[in-house]
Amino acid sequence: MVRAKTWILKKHFEGFPKQSDFELKVAELPPLKDGEVLLEAVFLSVDPYLRPYSKIKMKEGDKVIGSQVAKVLESKNPSYPVGSYIVAQSGWTTHFISDGKDLSLMPPSWPKNLSRSLALGTVGMPGLTAYFALSEICRLKPGEIIMINAAAGAVGTVAGQLAKLKGCKVVGCAGSEEKVAFLKKLGFDEVFNYKTVGSLAEALKKASPEGYDCYFDNVGGAFSTVVLNQMRKFGRIAVCGMISLYNDKEPQQGPYIQWPILMNQLCMEGFLVQRWENRKEEGLNALLKLVVEGKLKCPEHITEGFDNMPAAFMGMLKGENTGKAIVKA
Amino acid sequence: MVRAKTWILKKHFEGFPKQSDFELKVAELPPLKDGEVLLEAVFLSVDPYLRPYSKIKMKEGDKVIGSQVAKVLESKNPSYPVGSYIVAQSGWTTHFISDGKDLSLMPPSWPKNLSRSLALGTVGMPGLTAYFALSEICRLKPGEIIMINAAAGAVGTVAGQLAKLKGCKVVGCAGSEEKVAFLKKLGFDEVFNYKTVGSLAEALKKASPEGYDCYFDNVGGAFSTVVLNQMRKFGRIAVCGMISLYNDKEPQQGPYIQWPILMNQLCMEGFLVQRWENRKEEGLNALLKLVVEGKLKCPEHITEGFDNMPAAFMGMLKGENTGKAIVKA
Repeated sequence: MVRAKTWILKKHFEGFPKQSDFELKVAELPPLKDGEVLLEAVFLSVDPYLRPYSKIKMKEGDKVIGSQVAKVLESKNPSYPVGSYIVAQSGWTTHFISDGKDLSLMPPSWPKNLSRSLALGTVGMPGLTAYFALSEICRLKPGEIIMINAAAGAVGTVAGQLAKLKGCKVVGCAGSEEKVAFLKKLGFDEVFNYKTVGSLAEALKKASPEGYDCYFDNVGGAFSTVVLNQMRKFGRIAVCGMISLYNDKEPQQGPYIQWPILMNQLCMEGFLVQRWENRKEEGLNALLKLVVEGKLKCPEHITEGFDNMPAAFMGMLKGENTGKAIVKA
Repeated sequence: MVRAKTWILKKHFEGFPKQSDFELKVAELPPLKDGEVLLEAVFLSVDPYLRPYSKIKMKEGDKVIGSQVAKVLESKNPSYPVGSYIVAQSGWTTHFISDGKDLSLMPPSWPKNLSRSLALGTVGMPGLTAYFALSEICRLKPGEIIMINAAAGAVGTVAGQLAKLKGCKVVGCAGSEEKVAFLKKLGFDEVFNYKTVGSLAEALKKASPEGYDCYFDNVGGAFSTVVLNQMRKFGRIAVCGMISLYNDKEPQQGPYIQWPILMNQLCMEGFLVQRWENRKEEGLNALLKLVVEGKLKCPEHITEGFDNMPAAFMGMLKGENTGKAIVKA
């Protein structure tokens, strides 16, 4: 018998999530039936999307949603032999049984010296998000100027590096001096700490007096309004996230944005990475190739221990991570 | 000697424009030089864009900007024979001299029974705005559902009719019962008076319980925020105007719109019709053909007398017109 530990959403979040919103449960798993596999979590992902989707995807008492890299412990399904690794949207749990339909086998050719946790980050959903949004939403061209906020996050670090590889000027911002220094090492052209610059508008102007062709927005709200007013004609805004708004109890307000949208003929588009599900393999292959060639660095912020998942999630929402926030089971 | 009457911007608008912001001046025009033509206004256009562009395009003391249909009174330029008609961005003036560079000759084939004023409306800038925005920004497909506000205006009436011709469900709104009745006669599927519906959200829901694929936005601000929350997945928003915001002394505020933009993967794009300058002839030919075939009605609101231009402009901003607001000189 295998005992699975699972984090349950005990109470819907109100404002910023609290430890008491989560509850750890333990249950014994039944024996495998034909066609099933038993999986054990190796790395688990904590992602910002959990916050906005909490009420949409879960009710109180449900397992917390999320993806993980897991190892096959037992198998009655020839597609998933014992010892193989998979990626699955199986939620915050240490062990689970699957009939295989919702599993993605990691390629046997996965490089030995590459942590499998990257399948949750640069060579996974966040990497694909950056990859497709830059080409399909930002329609980024060599020589253009792009602004990326939450730039030290899982998506921002990939987006900034890909934009540099494309021959663009990349301006990033983050919330600590350490992150600023790290992003400069990653190759960002200009980086500032949004918490300590007196005026965001002036910091943006200083970083790129010519304005911005693209804006990769992970933050939304008041921050975005300032950036929109510095976009160039025909600028594109990829609305990837809105971490400044996720924890609102009352919706925040600001000036309507039709002025800059109209006067500079801007195009602002929201997207979810699932839109490109049919091109997933293309994206993952391209990202893995860049990682193997050393052209794409993969910063990670690893928290040890499954029991610390709520803390890792809340820490990520507070910006404690540089790069992808991962929990090692 | 010809005496030209000209409306001058005496004082920059503050809030809603006032009669005292304008001043009428009279001046004698010099004799023509070689290559020049003398023109007399026949129809003049008053358009919403004058309000947002007033500070950008004019300083106090300048001639008020705007387009007109004019007739050639005298000519020392063989391209513009006496008696021919042109369209020009010549401002609010009864007579002017041109070297021809800024004139567009109206086709000699212009149908006899068609008022030349249409070259300022359905077969002019407002018509082109609707024509290109529907295809290029809304990317409207047959069977889709589109919401158009300020639907009884110069652009809205064309946009709604073109969307019907494309096989779409068209929901419009306007600010009087007369306009509502008129739009229903034009073929709009659902129309409501935004001034008398208790709740805009409920009126939109009732008109299209399935939501909206496209939103042709002439209004902006609070109105738009309500519509955005009823857009369907992958909806497109064409930001054509923002008449609810033009007269702000302090910018109006409302909830940030990243939520609906992201969660429904909406695409919101601002545009100016000049973007399609290279396709102007294509657009005008298509619009003229539809008008001649009787497929496109061309409502106009005509004010008599050049001296009434400021009143016509202010009346249009208040929504007194159904269809294109025109001044007959």
